[in-house]
Amino acid sequence: MPIGDSDFEQVLRSAVEEAADARCPKLLAAALHHSVFPGGARVRPKLCLAVALANHCDAPALAAAAAASVELLHCASLVHDDMPCFDNADERRGRQSVHTAYGEPIALLAGDALIVSAFALLARPQLPAKNRLSQLMRVVAEGVGAPCGIAAGQAWESEPVVDVSLYHRAKTGALFIAATAAGAAAAGVDVAPWKLLGAKIGEAYQVADDIQDATSTPEQLGKPCGVDVALNRPSAVSELGLEGATHRLRELVEEGVAAVPPCAGRAELQEVVRQQAQRFLPKVCAPVAA
Amino acid sequence: MPIGDSDFEQVLRSAVEEAADARCPKLLAAALHHSVFPGGARVRPKLCLAVALANHCDAPALAAAAAASVELLHCASLVHDDMPCFDNADERRGRQSVHTAYGEPIALLAGDALIVSAFALLARPQLPAKNRLSQLMRVVAEGVGAPCGIAAGQAWESEPVVDVSLYHRAKTGALFIAATAAGAAAAGVDVAPWKLLGAKIGEAYQVADDIQDATSTPEQLGKPCGVDVALNRPSAVSELGLEGATHRLRELVEEGVAAVPPCAGRAELQEVVRQQAQRFLPKVCAPVAA
Repeated sequence: MPIGDSDFEQVLRSAVEEAADARCPKLLAAALHHSVFPGGARVRPKLCLAVALANHCDAPALAAAAAASVELLHCASLVHDDMPCFDNADERRGRQSVHTAYGEPIALLAGDALIVSAFALLARPQLPAKNRLSQLMRVVAEGVGAPCGIAAGQAWESEPVVDVSLYHRAKTGALFIAATAAGAAAAGVDVAPWKLLGAKIGEAYQVADDIQDATSTPEQLGKPCGVDVALNRPSAVSELGLEGATHRLRELVEEGVAAVPPCAGRAELQEVVRQQAQRFLPKVCAPVAA
Repeated sequence: MPIGDSDFEQVLRSAVEEAADARCPKLLAAALHHSVFPGGARVRPKLCLAVALANHCDAPALAAAAAASVELLHCASLVHDDMPCFDNADERRGRQSVHTAYGEPIALLAGDALIVSAFALLARPQLPAKNRLSQLMRVVAEGVGAPCGIAAGQAWESEPVVDVSLYHRAKTGALFIAATAAGAAAAGVDVAPWKLLGAKIGEAYQVADDIQDATSTPEQLGKPCGVDVALNRPSAVSELGLEGATHRLRELVEEGVAAVPPCAGRAELQEVVRQQAQRFLPKVCAPVAA
């Protein structure tokens, strides 16, 4: 999926630079850059772009904005999730987490500002296909707010009784669903059929994350591990065992591949899903059958 | 300004109920309600509606959504601002602050979810005048994000050297500017001339808040006071003295009245500005001349 990646990174950078311009307090500006660059695997925005591409999207600038918006929201969630009242993680992507580097107030505000930037980005005056904006905003918002987005997902961790399925779907799945639906919305096609693909990939990603958390060292991950066990969180590994979790992961990837709706670039997108899956499959797993 | 108020409260309630529906974790749902109801004076959304009305807005449902969006963002900023890493305020509007009642993680997430809801609300499919959405989103986002919105305003408090003018304009003025500009955007008129009105009212509100903070008891305010002095924050009272600050407040209200741009309902809106000013003028001040 080479087309669009560099455009998307450029849009992402311009969004951060706009928020962190000369008028922005310096610590906040630095924290905004730190939150987004250098990035992780950019799995969600790439998925969003791949869906737009598979639908022969005639508004690539809107697709790039949608992808960057999803990534800004992902970064915001990481910044807040690392804070002391949640994971209390000192490290992220192999360096200091935002609150460790800039303090809690700035981390909280950086997350807030990134959420706002994600929506501001979609509303840029020069973007095409304004008639798609409303739908695009809705699917993006669903992925991050309440009742079923990331904020709700993290909030399940404060409940005495957790609905594990709702928890995972909200905390991890929702933004993958937003990514595929946003790609469809940017292309101007019906978003509904694209949500299952996002849900399957999100579920796979969650299982992969559980496996990594259980089997890696902090050096390998660039962040603390064993967190699920330490915080007594539900995990596919504690539920199914390592082998069972790995088996479930493979199933989910293939279910994702099968869930790609009919579209002009279906076969290519299915290949992208398999390839991207390789990137987040833990080292313990052999490649997924192509 | 009787028209629109009840519509706006209804829209606000529906937005919170939508975010806090049966799928939402219970603590988060309760915190979302607690953050928004019962409300304060609803100064900003009323200002937004008054501007839309003065422009004979032909899309009242969009104006109500804009007003509710501004209020959701205001509530979000209060929830985050009360948290221990900022004001560490136990009380708000005469009862427990959100983090005191529900804990820090839920307060942080409630603020995040309210920000998302504010944008989701503007994107509701049934709203009219979709061609105004992009502009409306931009002015709302400017009021709350970086570089010049509320998040930036709070971030100035972490800087070793504070630009007081930028600080106040971002922390308090920006959302008033968003309120007047959003009213204009909902009405489909040029937003630029409406920003000065918001800036003047915002500045007046800030001075009034400084005076209240310096002269009231916690019982009167329903929240801690003397905070500016305790945290060594810039304040109009410490800068100009109580009498000077009061004089400045009156000037600003009249500058706001003069700043109302030409429009069908100019005289009525000027009267609304004076009336609303009375509501937030501290008890120490006699009424502003009508």
